[in-house]
Amino acid sequence: MLINCVVYQDGKRIRDIPVDEISQWLGRGDSFVWVALRDATDEELTAMQKQFHLPDLAVEDAMHVHQRPKIEEYADSLFCVLHLVEPKGDELNVGEMAIFAGRDYVLSVRNRSEQGFLGVRERCEREPELLRFGSSFVLYALMDAVVDRYFPLTDAFELEIESIEEKIFELGAARSNVRRLYELKRKVMTLRHAVAPLLEAISKLYGGRVPALCAQTQDYFRDVSDHLYRINGSIDNIRDTIGTAIQVNLAMVTIETGEIGKRLAGWAAIFAVATTIVGIWGMNFEFMPELKWRYGYPMALGVIAGVCGLMYWYFRRARWL
Amino acid sequence: MLINCVVYQDGKRIRDIPVDEISQWLGRGDSFVWVALRDATDEELTAMQKQFHLPDLAVEDAMHVHQRPKIEEYADSLFCVLHLVEPKGDELNVGEMAIFAGRDYVLSVRNRSEQGFLGVRERCEREPELLRFGSSFVLYALMDAVVDRYFPLTDAFELEIESIEEKIFELGAARSNVRRLYELKRKVMTLRHAVAPLLEAISKLYGGRVPALCAQTQDYFRDVSDHLYRINGSIDNIRDTIGTAIQVNLAMVTIETGEIGKRLAGWAAIFAVATTIVGIWGMNFEFMPELKWRYGYPMALGVIAGVCGLMYWYFRRARWL
Amino acid sequence: MLINCVVYQDGKRIRDIPVDEISQWLGRGDSFVWVALRDATDEELTAMQKQFHLPDLAVEDAMHVHQRPKIEEYADSLFCVLHLVEPKGDELNVGEMAIFAGRDYVLSVRNRSEQGFLGVRERCEREPELLRFGSSFVLYALMDAVVDRYFPLTDAFELEIESIEEKIFELGAARSNVRRLYELKRKVMTLRHAVAPLLEAISKLYGGRVPALCAQTQDYFRDVSDHLYRINGSIDNIRDTIGTAIQVNLAMVTIETGEIGKRLAGWAAIFAVATTIVGIWGMNFEFMPELKWRYGYPMALGVIAGVCGLMYWYFRRARWL
Amino acid sequence: MLINCVVYQDGKRIRDIPVDEISQWLGRGDSFVWVALRDATDEELTAMQKQFHLPDLAVEDAMHVHQRPKIEEYADSLFCVLHLVEPKGDELNVGEMAIFAGRDYVLSVRNRSEQGFLGVRERCEREPELLRFGSSFVLYALMDAVVDRYFPLTDAFELEIESIEEKIFELGAARSNVRRLYELKRKVMTLRHAVAPLLEAISKLYGGRVPALCAQTQDYFRDVSDHLYRINGSIDNIRDTIGTAIQVNLAMVTIETGEIGKRLAGWAAIFAVATTIVGIWGMNFEFMPELKWRYGYPMALGVIAGVCGLMYWYFRRARWL
Amino acid sequence: MLINCVVYQDGKRIRDIPVDEISQWLGRGDSFVWVALRDATDEELTAMQKQFHLPDLAVEDAMHVHQRPKIEEYADSLFCVLHLVEPKGDELNVGEMAIFAGRDYVLSVRNRSEQGFLGVRERCEREPELLRFGSSFVLYALMDAVVDRYFPLTDAFELEIESIEEKIFELGAARSNVRRLYELKRKVMTLRHAVAPLLEAISKLYGGRVPALCAQTQDYFRDVSDHLYRINGSIDNIRDTIGTAIQVNLAMVTIETGEIGKRLAGWAAIFAVATTIVGIWGMNFEFMPELKWRYGYPMALGVIAGVCGLMYWYFRRARWL
Repeated sequence: MLINCVVYQDGKRIRDIPVDEISQWLGRGDSFVWVALRDATDEELTAMQKQFHLPDLAVEDAMHVHQRPKIEEYADSLFCVLHLVEPKGDELNVGEMAIFAGRDYVLSVRNRSEQGFLGVRERCEREPELLRFGSSFVLYALMDAVVDRYFPLTDAFELEIESIEEKIFELGAARSNVRRLYELKRKVMTLRHAVAPLLEAISKLYGGRVPALCAQTQDYFRDVSDHLYRINGSIDNIRDTIGTAIQVNLAMVTIETGEIGKRLAGWAAIFAVATTIVGIWGMNFEFMPELKWRYGYPMALGVIAGVCGLMYWYFRRARWL
Repeated sequence: MLINCVVYQDGKRIRDIPVDEISQWLGRGDSFVWVALRDATDEELTAMQKQFHLPDLAVEDAMHVHQRPKIEEYADSLFCVLHLVEPKGDELNVGEMAIFAGRDYVLSVRNRSEQGFLGVRERCEREPELLRFGSSFVLYALMDAVVDRYFPLTDAFELEIESIEEKIFELGAARSNVRRLYELKRKVMTLRHAVAPLLEAISKLYGGRVPALCAQTQDYFRDVSDHLYRINGSIDNIRDTIGTAIQVNLAMVTIETGEIGKRLAGWAAIFAVATTIVGIWGMNFEFMPELKWRYGYPMALGVIAGVCGLMYWYFRRARWL
Repeated sequence: MLINCVVYQDGKRIRDIPVDEISQWLGRGDSFVWVALRDATDEELTAMQKQFHLPDLAVEDAMHVHQRPKIEEYADSLFCVLHLVEPKGDELNVGEMAIFAGRDYVLSVRNRSEQGFLGVRERCEREPELLRFGSSFVLYALMDAVVDRYFPLTDAFELEIESIEEKIFELGAARSNVRRLYELKRKVMTLRHAVAPLLEAISKLYGGRVPALCAQTQDYFRDVSDHLYRINGSIDNIRDTIGTAIQVNLAMVTIETGEIGKRLAGWAAIFAVATTIVGIWGMNFEFMPELKWRYGYPMALGVIAGVCGLMYWYFRRARWL
Repeated sequence: MLINCVVYQDGKRIRDIPVDEISQWLGRGDSFVWVALRDATDEELTAMQKQFHLPDLAVEDAMHVHQRPKIEEYADSLFCVLHLVEPKGDELNVGEMAIFAGRDYVLSVRNRSEQGFLGVRERCEREPELLRFGSSFVLYALMDAVVDRYFPLTDAFELEIESIEEKIFELGAARSNVRRLYELKRKVMTLRHAVAPLLEAISKLYGGRVPALCAQTQDYFRDVSDHLYRINGSIDNIRDTIGTAIQVNLAMVTIETGEIGKRLAGWAAIFAVATTIVGIWGMNFEFMPELKWRYGYPMALGVIAGVCGLMYWYFRRARWL
Repeated sequence: MLINCVVYQDGKRIRDIPVDEISQWLGRGDSFVWVALRDATDEELTAMQKQFHLPDLAVEDAMHVHQRPKIEEYADSLFCVLHLVEPKGDELNVGEMAIFAGRDYVLSVRNRSEQGFLGVRERCEREPELLRFGSSFVLYALMDAVVDRYFPLTDAFELEIESIEEKIFELGAARSNVRRLYELKRKVMTLRHAVAPLLEAISKLYGGRVPALCAQTQDYFRDVSDHLYRINGSIDNIRDTIGTAIQVNLAMVTIETGEIGKRLAGWAAIFAVATTIVGIWGMNFEFMPELKWRYGYPMALGVIAGVCGLMYWYFRRARWL
């Protein structure tokens, strides 16, 4: 579905054009065309390929779902795939944004995502002095917008882990803690899948030898890279924390089990002794003189209480009870 | 066993030729020979070596089973080994495909695998404009076909892990979960063995300095590499998830054991106390006044019920029961 | 908030100047301006940007909180972000220091931290022969001051871990040990977040190709790098030790639980046997001759004591009790 | 101990020579001397050093035991240390092979190993067209022979792990499984010690800049490297599998312990209830009307059976029994 | 404290000189001064700095304790810090050796260590042909001596781990095994701290571009590096083994706990049944015909023995007892 198709000249918006006028605007040197598609069909992509002479392999990639984030250089154009990650209920939805960028055009194709990018176009049009850099600035602006939307996710992950941490030493919460940690881990891995390959790919757009297209906008791509590093650092931190938290949770359960084992053993011992003693005086021997004593019964109760008290005191001191 | 042996010129199929005519078609510059063998004997390979002047070490490698995936450069030819991984019952079967590629020939040798590659030849013949790139395009087409068959495997792995995850917090499923996770891990490692070395090797066929043979088809090999990266990413993800899942499974069992320990301890305490009390009134002392009481028995039952009820309430509050 | 704004010439302090005189002092070649801000507002930063022609992206970064430590090179200036880490109660507070350094100016902006850096200025002014190196020496002095304040933290971490280690084999301390280890881990990760990215970034300021600004002060930056390596080494060591310590703690609890299980089992067996025996003589059969014996009761007590003694001796030998 | 000392010319064996004739055959350009020693004494090595002008540091290394596998380049010669790993009872015996190779000589010194290498000499002499490459081909042939003998070890390791895996989900085998896994791990680490450093070292003999000596035999060393990669891959795989297997074994034991805990708890509850009930009717109160009933006793047995049956059914449904 | 201060010319010892004569001997080209200090005060170091014109930053470093091992290049001199690790009771003592080496001087400063290095001087003086290489050979000799003293430590670690391994499958040794493994780990980490940074640093002294000072003695530094690699390999191996050993130990305890749990459950069941049965015949119902039987009592004993025997046989078969 075509969202819009606009010509820009000297950093300023000229006008919306129909798709089949595109080729007239290419190759003039001072203008570029910026087309945005959404959930594009194969036909739309083929039409675009004809207008912009897009490389075959890149178009084939854009037609398939589940691409890996990447930046590929073709002769004088770039093909980028970015992941659009957004919360959807309890899960994360992963869409894709494919961007074709050449000297005089930018084509963005957004798939399976509810996130809109009209704001990026508006922001670019408000800054004509930057938009004058041409298509590579648009490429930057789109990447920047995609990457900036990863930050709320890491913030949410960090909040979630803090909320779990508050309960990590709480008895009885172990089961739900582990479950939440596991689900968090899955989400973190999904985001990592979006970030890590991009981080590697983007390093080709600044620093040493960069594609001609990005020569003037290197600093901007370095800025995106820096944001990705920050996100990646958070992700690594969260992963590490999740691992330790599961381990600690398990340790707490084991410790608690051990303590319960001790208490169980202690009380079991006390009552086993009492039961044995009352059993002795419950035997039916004829000649058990103490059974005849006037104060035999209170004495028996006293003996039992005494023995149990002694044992209680002993276990208490040994910190079993 | 010879599958077929065909001469191509200008991207078009000329005709099938017998093996001993091969050498007449080499060195003409505009044509190449594409030979496919299956479970080749040493004699067949030696015969091929004579026709194509294949390097000794490469032929020796192709004669041995259990090669590691690799791409080796000899003077002006390439020698590739790929793993063919296919499900066979509950296990994965690992076959091998050895490919010798020179300027005017491609020889593929498939061993110990049921997968056929006739489709690759058909696809190539349908696209003469690409087949005009010569033997390196055939090499690409074969590699691409092999690698594309890894995708259903990672999809199956991901389905399996999702199916395990549904039961990961289910009591009583721990044993079968661990078993399935372990078996999945083995399969994943088998696929990783096929993918990781190839990923490393293929990086020599695009980017910086590439063998002369692949100079024009670099973008295609980069595309294969990209697919391998995707598969490798999935594999890493699955491995990581398996590790965490085993850990989480163990945590759930430990947590459950701890809870059972608590309940056991709680009920044991209640009944131990009751047994001790009834034992007291079962003693045979002569002077136990309450035994003579008219309502001694109901009182005793009441005491027992009261004490047990109190303990039950206490343990309940402490969340042991 | 402006802390101070001073002009230096030939390594000597000339005088404090108001902010709007700054631009008059730039570009003279032999002097530089050193401005220190604290918790700067966006307006203050924009004012500075005008005076020093700071790069847009860097200023934007400085306006946002939670930057990652980094060193970025712009045309002929450097932009550095450092983390200021200081204990605050039981937690670590993380502030930031952004430094803009050009040939004839240094601007430091300290955010969300109580740490002062007046001492750095004093130290620099005491050593005019070093201050003659110009702004890059000031940059070094600031970085050195920030990094030196990481040392007391690693020392405190090492003390904490030693204090935990003293109790690691102590029964009953497991719970608090794990808690302390977990909290220590969090703090260590916070410091690592400050150190690791900086370590990577600073390597660009010495050794091979360095920014023109730092050409003469390379050895000083290598010295900072060396300090960071030491801190990083300590951090890695502590992390590794924490991991092992949690594992060992868990092992000790498991071992203790196992021992308690043995003791519980042993005593339970002894008393179960005793209870069964006394139960036998508590049965109401009419023809139980031993109940009539004169010394039946002492015999019974003897049998019980004997059997229990035997079992005790057996379990003792088997090291269960 | 001298094994043999032979002169070769143009790839053909000339004749055996005594040690003190060696120096007469050096420096002729078309011939080389191949000497093999076994468990050489320091005197023998010093004698060889004089004949071949071997570098001091290399000879010192060869005199000491427990070298790390390595390949060192000296002016125009190479010094290699390889580990000879062979099974010896239940353990692995690690011997060493030191090889000195110059333009016109090869000296191999085998220490503390029962493995013979006469076969290598025979194989070389059967292929004069390859032996014509000179000493570097001999070096290759020796390395190849050493490395090929690592394969049976990895095969044995894989068999052992498969044999353990068959029992990994078998109750009661945990103890011996863990023991076998631990012992296997030790052996694997011993082989890894032999392989990993060599893998790193051998990469200097092919590819980019190689020692003059190996310029013509690069492909052969790449072949050895490829074998080492395969072995290393197996080792990594086995290590990973051992780790997971220990983890899984532990999980199975924990799961089983948990299940036994449940059953224990279930049965304990049933019998505790029964014991309490019979204890109640064993009390000696005077007024317990049911004791006088004609069918009191069967009723009591019925109550006990009923209660226990109910509990049994309940626990069964909850899958505790 | 000055140990000695000697002038060497052409590899031969000329004579001991007082410290203030040093500067007279510098810059002659054919001689060098070798000074050894021990636990040097700041004054002594400042005096040396004046004589040798040592770089400020290096001297500052040498004055501070707890340096990280490193090798720094200044203009035409080298500054090295090495760790001296020696056993001291049950702990490892870590001292430091700082070495300043220039074209015509070597200054070694040993701090907080009992190890002497007079032997190094003697060894050097015995080999004038090597000492002729000048100060860089002395630097090598000192590094070599320091590194050689690490070997007895790794040997001791390996002995310790073997001694622990003998007890790893022994019941009851788990507690002391874990403790010993933990203490060993700490020592290993201390040695690793000395070795790993040095290994990295020393690679600058041989191979590619090396400091002018070491150009002729590269092979010697490679030899030291090789020793460090060996030590590092041992350390990695020991660390890996410690990790597995703790894991295995824990597995053995868990397995044993599980077995005890089974036995406990088995015996508990047998005695619980017996107690219930005797309780039944201990009930006070009036009409319990079997109580009147002549052989009721033996029958009862028979029933109990029979039931218990049956259960014993059953548990035995199930391998619980």
